[in-house]
This record gives sequence, structure tokens and C-alpha cells, in this order.
Amino acid sequence: MLKKQTLTLAFISATLAAMPVTHAGTFHGAQANPHREYGAIFQIDNGGNGAIKKTLNNIENLLHDPRLKGHIKIELIANSKGFDVYVKGNGFRRKLKELQHQGVILAQCGNTLRELHVNRHDLYPFITVVPSGVGEITIRESEGWAYIHPGAPHHEGF
Amino acid sequence: MLKKQTLTLAFISATLAAMPVTHAGTFHGAQANPHREYGAIFQIDNGGNGAIKKTLNNIENLLHDPRLKGHIKIELIANSKGFDVYVKGNGFRRKLKELQHQGVILAQCGNTLRELHVNRHDLYPFITVVPSGVGEITIRESEGWAYIHPGAPHHEGF
Amino acid sequence: MLKKQTLTLAFISATLAAMPVTHAGTFHGAQANPHREYGAIFQIDNGGNGAIKKTLNNIENLLHDPRLKGHIKIELIANSKGFDVYVKGNGFRRKLKELQHQGVILAQCGNTLRELHVNRHDLYPFITVVPSGVGEITIRESEGWAYIHPGAPHHEGF
Repeated sequence: MLKKQTLTLAFISATLAAMPVTHAGTFHGAQANPHREYGAIFQIDNGGNGAIKKTLNNIENLLHDPRLKGHIKIELIANSKGFDVYVKGNGFRRKLKELQHQGVILAQCGNTLRELHVNRHDLYPFITVVPSGVGEITIRESEGWAYIHPGAPHHEGF
Repeated sequence: MLKKQTLTLAFISATLAAMPVTHAGTFHGAQANPHREYGAIFQIDNGGNGAIKKTLNNIENLLHDPRLKGHIKIELIANSKGFDVYVKGNGFRRKLKELQHQGVILAQCGNTLRELHVNRHDLYPFITVVPSGVGEITIRESEGWAYIHPGAPHHEGF
Repeated sequence: MLKKQTLTLAFISATLAAMPVTHAGTFHGAQANPHREYGAIFQIDNGGNGAIKKTLNNIENLLHDPRLKGHIKIELIANSKGFDVYVKGNGFRRKLKELQHQGVILAQCGNTLRELHVNRHDLYPFITVVPSGVGEITIRESEGWAYIHPGAPHHEGF
């Protein structure tokens, strides 16, 4: 185990040393380590269908990136007006359940519920409330997970 | 040095291996390590009261997350139109002082001042100007701090 | 295992122990390690000249931050409506070429091209298409690169 990790480190060092060339045609994107587990936490903190569609679509794309497929763990954290993504009857129930079935953690900031006077029972029952969205992000990043915050679209659609 | 890094890697791998379950009811949020110090850098790069309130509120929530309380270090970096947060007479002086008193570092991008012709003396004197906001973020993330960029609200309020 | 974690913690604690003081006048920004290589990935996922100008300006500022100059590697990843930054005839060809000449990797999300029906040939030929933008971000962050997502400006300009 120790040896493998030493090799992993050697691999990372080598990667950083030999950073990719920038000429189109020779560089085809960052390379994942097939022996490593990856994590990513997505934040949504604006409401509206455009922001929701864009964020869920981003998550689906990450699940299917051939470089990471099968060794990526994902969480969605909603705070501020982003709680919209979990409001019952918003039309995204099926999509959320599909993502959860694929292992995506669905989390909601508890402070937001109190501050914006949102009733927990107005949100889908299958999500999880965490103490704070920003705390959740901080801990995940400290664990080596990537943070991705899609920008809310200027206009509806994505 | 190499040994330490190898061990660090082992630690990260162990953390990723023990990833949380996703069923609501059994998962209550990521778990912090009580023996670890955490860091987070917040970016604000849009102006307006809505963006300022939301960002400062996010910082306050992180300071009080029970999982991290007492072992979290926070910095706020303003760049682009985000310098608004530090403009004298904007109504946020007291809140900023409170946050600073709780250990929050208040930093302003120096490039922004030059590019947007902002006079340093129009900003609160108790903040610190750093060479560039993006450099500040890059260094903090490299030190293991989390990066959190709240989205500017579409409408005033948060 | 316990020993490993103790050492890791010692390493992290040492880093945090040497944290800057927050008093204006004594703290002048985070300090870079001159012997370390840094990386940063910028995301653009909204269109429009304001968002493009702001993002490219941010990249230029990072290239010239005196703390990191000469030991920073940068990538720009465009997804969603952010593909705008690479559309032929958008007025940013020269700036993009300048950045690329300075080592900046210019990458475009392949999923976006398919989903938004964008023809690869309508984009500058010197950029690189990667499987997914979110996968690219996840891998870079896992390699220790910083993630920076400038917020699209509310109004044109930056």
C-alpha cells in the first residue's frame, strides 16, 4: 500500500513536472489516475429553472466523463436561494432521484431553511439537511474533493 | 519531506475510502476532524448590497458551523466590482469589524484599485491590499484552504 | 496509521501556525513558496463580452502576480454559454493567442458542443476540446491546482 502511494506521488510529481503542451492536437485534456478515487461538490445558491437545469446537467456530465466514470463521488449542496432545487413539485424530482440512485449526495444548508423561513416539509423528503452549506463545502474541499460552482445563467435555459 | 508527503497521501486516501452513505436519515453531513485546522477563502467580485449581504452572511455561517467552530480560519478577498464591500460609508463597517474581530482576514486586490481607478483612501483603513486577488486565492488553495465563491443574487436580498 | 496521521497533522498544523496576522499594515497577503510550482484552472460558463473580458483580465493578473510569476501554470476551461470566449471573430483572438504564448492552456468542454449544437469549426482552431469541462476541473483540483470561477458581471464591462 505504501509503495503504491509512493508511486502515486511519483506519478503526480511527474505530471506536474511534465505539464501538458498547449498545442491543439497534442493535448487532449487532463489525465485521470485510474487507481484514484475522486470527489466533487457542486454548489447551487441561486434559484430558477435555468440555474437548476444547468447544475444538474453539469453533475450528469461529470458522472459520465470517461476519464472518471466509476471512480467519482459527487455531492450537491444547496444554500441561499438555491434551495429551489429541492422544492416539492418543482419538476426535478425524477432527475434528482436518478442522480441519487447513481450515488450523488443531495444536501441542503440548514441555516438557509431558518433564515429564509423555508419549511423542511416543503422540500423533497429524500434529501439531507446539513448544519451549513459553507461548512459542508469547506470539509469536502479539505478531504481533497473538487469544488465546482456553476454560474447561474443570465437568461433561462443553459 | 518526501516521507511526509507520502504519509499525507495515505491520509487522503483513507479519507476517500471511508466516504459517507447517501441515504437520508443516516447521513447528516460531512464530518470534520476535530484535530485539524481548517481554512476557507471567500471571493466577492460583484458589487451591490445583495452580493455583500450574502457573502458576509455566508462567512458568519461558516464561523458558527458547529463542526468547525474554533478551528476555522477565514479570509475574504474582494476584486473587480467586489471592492464595493470595502467602500467607506457603505453601511457594512460594523459587520466587517465584527468579522475581523473574530479573526477574518479582509483583503482587497491591488490590481483592481489601479484598473478601476479606486482610491485606497475611499476604502476602510482596516483592510489589507494584496498584489492580486487571483494570486491570493491560488496561494490559499495551495495551502489547503477551501475556496468558496457565493453567486451574486439575481435580485437584491439573499 | 495513527503515526502517519499524526505526522500529517503536524505538517498541516505547521502550515496553519505560520498564518498571517490580520492587522492592516503588518499583513500584506499570503506568501508563496518560491520552490513550489502552482496551478490554477479558470472556469467561464456564461457568454457576453463582459464575462470574457473579466475572465481574461483575471488570468493576466495571475500571470503577473509577483508572488507567483514564473512558477504558475494556468488553464482556461469554457463550458455552457462560456464557449463564447472561443467563437471565431469575437474580437478576442489576439488576446487568447497572447495568453497561450505565455503557457495558458485553452480548453473547451466537448459536451457543450454537442448539447448546444456548436460546430467545432466555428471555434478558434488553436484551442483544445476535452471530454467534459467539469471533469477537467475535477482532475485539475485533484492535482492541487486552484479553481477560480470569476462571476459574470451584472452589467457589461468589469
